Amino acid sequence: MDRKLILVTNDDGIFAPGLKALVNIAKKHGEVVVVAPNTPQSGMGHAITMNQPLRLHKLNHFEGVESYECSGTPVDCVKLAKNVLLKERTLDLCLSGINHGSNASINIIYSGTMSAAMEASLEHVPSIGFSLLDYSFDADFWQAEPFLDQLIESVLQNGIKSCNLLNVNIPKLKRDEIKGLMVCRQAKGHWVEEFKEGKDPRNETYYWLTGEFYCDDPGDDTDLWALENGYISIVPSGHDLTVHHAISQNSHLQINQHEPIGN
Amino acid sequence: MDRKLILVTNDDGIFAPGLKALVNIAKKHGEVVVVAPNTPQSGMGHAITMNQPLRLHKLNHFEGVESYECSGTPVDCVKLAKNVLLKERTLDLCLSGINHGSNASINIIYSGTMSAAMEASLEHVPSIGFSLLDYSFDADFWQAEPFLDQLIESVLQNGIKSCNLLNVNIPKLKRDEIKGLMVCRQAKGHWVEEFKEGKDPRNETYYWLTGEFYCDDPGDDTDLWALENGYISIVPSGHDLTVHHAISQNSHLQINQHEPIGN
Repeated sequence: MDRKLILVTNDDGIFAPGLKALVNIAKKHGEVVVVAPNTPQSGMGHAITMNQPLRLHKLNHFEGVESYECSGTPVDCVKLAKNVLLKERTLDLCLSGINHGSNASINIIYSGTMSAAMEASLEHVPSIGFSLLDYSFDADFWQAEPFLDQLIESVLQNGIKSCNLLNVNIPKLKRDEIKGLMVCRQAKGHWVEEFKEGKDPRNETYYWLTGEFYCDDPGDDTDLWALENGYISIVPSGHDLTVHHAISQNSHLQINQHEPIGN
Repeated sequence: MDRKLILVTNDDGIFAPGLKALVNIAKKHGEVVVVAPNTPQSGMGHAITMNQPLRLHKLNHFEGVESYECSGTPVDCVKLAKNVLLKERTLDLCLSGINHGSNASINIIYSGTMSAAMEASLEHVPSIGFSLLDYSFDADFWQAEPFLDQLIESVLQNGIKSCNLLNVNIPKLKRDEIKGLMVCRQAKGHWVEEFKEGKDPRNETYYWLTGEFYCDDPGDDTDLWALENGYISIVPSGHDLTVHHAISQNSHLQINQHEPIGN
């Protein structure tokens, strides 16, 4: 049987330890190609580079793995991998991460890690984005390894049902404390933002983003619940932002030209 | 009665003609404050600036309107407006745009214009993002004015039902050719990407993103259908990316720790 072809990317950049961990996991499941940003791109959301050219350089950073650094965003990396580097081949899976911090709840929309995975899913490649709830540089990505192995193998064998994208978040726990994998929904939550105001050396005012996250969702079927209760959360995700039940409820906004309107 | 307080922002930057058009429309409906990026930010998606300080400078660019340029992304602009500049006041509405080109279908996820509006909606401010299907610098934003006036007034009076965000796209038509406003869903569509490969003056290879959009959706209840048939499209939008019906269908991915797993 042919080996599966797996694209690995991230948003923390080609030298991030989380990428190395994910490459080492991915290598067990197939042939791996890495395309990752040459600088950290946290918080880049679904940014793409349209007004500038992109650069791509081959590196020898991962033993036995073809790898490239890219001057663009995480989404650019996926587009270049799919449409330039691997144009003639069929990608079986895209893995993005492992990110530091949470991409659960509303954090998915700010996440470059998840946007890279979403971009691959839009190109019909089953994709998984991973994040570990540990911001420290020496975060231990290995505790969850057997769970991720089993998830990746299952997706390679059976695909993802009814969508093409999984948002996977991992609690900061030892291997034997992790209760398992839970398939769940995105919790409602919000950030309360603050900006630290300061003066730079030239006495100009600056603002620096900080904030605190709040869960607004009492449900026990959410990613936040799963993580708080010792499970790795898996949210099947997509890209339809329509609030479908709001369509009929906002039908009063409709206008037809034969009804008179202002001037 | 108090005048309504309206935040206006965009992703094409403080000097974009589309912003000027939107400010002039917004002024008719309330007190306007503008916070917009100091450089064009097209394709920035939901990017936020976490690793750098942000700058905010007051400008006198719009007659009778308090306005600021910001060094960050469209989402940064909204966060700074809500949490610093207008911290003590209640925002009644956020308007973003008017963007050039289409934010319909899947384009919403790449759009800085829509991300700014989405950010305000996350902060409980009813928000509308606007885009005109005309890329030219001298695009005529005025043809749709009476329709936008009526929409804005309706949202100020009655809010948006069951969500807080509208994705509004405007066809490139003369006023009397516009058939009306249609409330609809986000169409399924995809981009087929290509990269123009070239050599820079130092003979280094570069790649420049280009591509073509395809509609995958035969429905007559979509934003693409509305635009092709002469309507301004309005998609009630949110930020829940969960594919809910896929949760039960992927329950085979669940693991409980008491079941044996690899090593």
